[in-house]
Amino acid sequence: MSQLEKVVVTGGAGFIGSNLVDALIEQGKEVHVIDNFSTGRREFLNPKAELHELDLCDESETLGAIVNGADSVYHLAANADVRFGMTDIKRDINQNVIATLRVAQACAENTVKEVIFSSTGAVYGDAVQHPTPETAQFPIQTSLYGVSKTAAEGVLSTFAANGLFHVCAFRFVSVLGHRYMHGHVIDFVRQLHQDPSALTVLGDGSQRKSYMDVKDCVRALVTLRGAQGFEVFNLGADDYCTVRDSVAWITQAMGVEPKISYGIEKRGWVGDNPFTWLDVSKAKNHGWVAEKSISHSVQGTVSWLLENTWALAVQDFRK
Amino acid sequence: MSQLEKVVVTGGAGFIGSNLVDALIEQGKEVHVIDNFSTGRREFLNPKAELHELDLCDESETLGAIVNGADSVYHLAANADVRFGMTDIKRDINQNVIATLRVAQACAENTVKEVIFSSTGAVYGDAVQHPTPETAQFPIQTSLYGVSKTAAEGVLSTFAANGLFHVCAFRFVSVLGHRYMHGHVIDFVRQLHQDPSALTVLGDGSQRKSYMDVKDCVRALVTLRGAQGFEVFNLGADDYCTVRDSVAWITQAMGVEPKISYGIEKRGWVGDNPFTWLDVSKAKNHGWVAEKSISHSVQGTVSWLLENTWALAVQDFRK
Repeated sequence: MSQLEKVVVTGGAGFIGSNLVDALIEQGKEVHVIDNFSTGRREFLNPKAELHELDLCDESETLGAIVNGADSVYHLAANADVRFGMTDIKRDINQNVIATLRVAQACAENTVKEVIFSSTGAVYGDAVQHPTPETAQFPIQTSLYGVSKTAAEGVLSTFAANGLFHVCAFRFVSVLGHRYMHGHVIDFVRQLHQDPSALTVLGDGSQRKSYMDVKDCVRALVTLRGAQGFEVFNLGADDYCTVRDSVAWITQAMGVEPKISYGIEKRGWVGDNPFTWLDVSKAKNHGWVAEKSISHSVQGTVSWLLENTWALAVQDFRK
Repeated sequence: MSQLEKVVVTGGAGFIGSNLVDALIEQGKEVHVIDNFSTGRREFLNPKAELHELDLCDESETLGAIVNGADSVYHLAANADVRFGMTDIKRDINQNVIATLRVAQACAENTVKEVIFSSTGAVYGDAVQHPTPETAQFPIQTSLYGVSKTAAEGVLSTFAANGLFHVCAFRFVSVLGHRYMHGHVIDFVRQLHQDPSALTVLGDGSQRKSYMDVKDCVRALVTLRGAQGFEVFNLGADDYCTVRDSVAWITQAMGVEPKISYGIEKRGWVGDNPFTWLDVSKAKNHGWVAEKSISHSVQGTVSWLLENTWALAVQDFRK
């Protein structure tokens, strides 16, 4: 009788987490999900996963018991949108950093071999090199979200550097696709669903951004494994688009021709990076490449949202 | 009637802070000190400074009132030694990051022009380039102290990037000299003061470290000002020494010939970086250079400690 490999996914009811959980269960893993449903959704949760409803910031002894015996822990739970102007940024930074510290301590105490972490291209701040490689120069942070993810990476690399477990950290561009619930595509689709004749865009539309589809993202998470020490991979499409490109794809997919009002700012919001484009050569050298183009990812996301209009009605409390 | 320039120094009763306060008062500034005396000492505090006894992590309205009207705020208060294995690392990370966030918010709300921050060369982790320039590649953190300082820098750069105030961040090597109370020199002097015949050294003695004298450090803090946006300077001596060099200088200065027991580890402690040497070209190009050599700084520190043996008796709670 072979025993199933135990894997834990924090944030396993979230957008990326739930897609990952589906893939891991398809691979025959014993999957444990930790989620507090602050942004995760019960309908996304794979019924074959074992759910542990838990806030990682709560002091409790159960976290250790959950990760005990796991080969890998995917730490995806996060406050995914700590924009600069939020009222409770102290709590948000706390949650991203302290939650990661708690996961790291539990993994170290229970001899978990590898922690896989969802970081972000936002850690590069306003990068001076495009596309930006993992070895880019010491970044100057421009958002507290980037700060909190950089710190969380740092917590994990400290544990790795001191031999407690291996870490694979993935710096994502923005992720689109199946179960996508937050970002510019849903903002635009929501507006156009209410009123197909008008669209308001944050920033002047010149912002250049890269994206990837959640299926590509998940394939990286399950294949680019087996880090020794602390390993980091950029993940994203090979190219980028402008917000104006994205507007064109979205309006085309919806068959609407709205009047579009752009802002005047280079940054879409305080802390936004006007140009995000990651060098993904390292992941490619390890056999991974984003298969879906940005335009297909955007239009696929529009299709999913139009088939799941309930998602448009979900209040985005993170704004 | 000319009005004095108001300057605020957090941690102004500490080692570096109190030396800075003395220099600022000598320059004729109106100096306000914020200190909670967790490591600061009342006997270091310049009597001409106005003291505000305050813990930066406490929620209070007074912080804003203190920084109001200040041109510059020096944020030096920190938990200066978050070693990896500490029992309360969560609180320590919190304090360094949240205290900085509170200072940043108070400065933004009170239109302070410039925040000057004491960071550390530990932000480079185990650097891959020596001497390490400010533009070194994206660092992999090896200590939670480095993580917390990187995050604090990031909090400040986020405010700077969003136009709220200018920031000058200094990444120090270890600082020695007048009022020095913590680090390897006091550890060694304390041991040899108790028993001149034996000295135990953490690590194998091969660790290469750079240092600077607090007088050089303070001169940088008061002269390398006027940042636009976010500016960062490495500060340190031009060269480095090994722990064995330092042992030789200390024993010579004390006139003792102990039996020396070295450890076997490359790192002196968990999270220690075996080689710290910063490229200070940028500071030099701006007119600053460390004037005191490492050997003179080490021996000057020994002299100060031997003239102030009360310092040897102060319990180093941070160990």
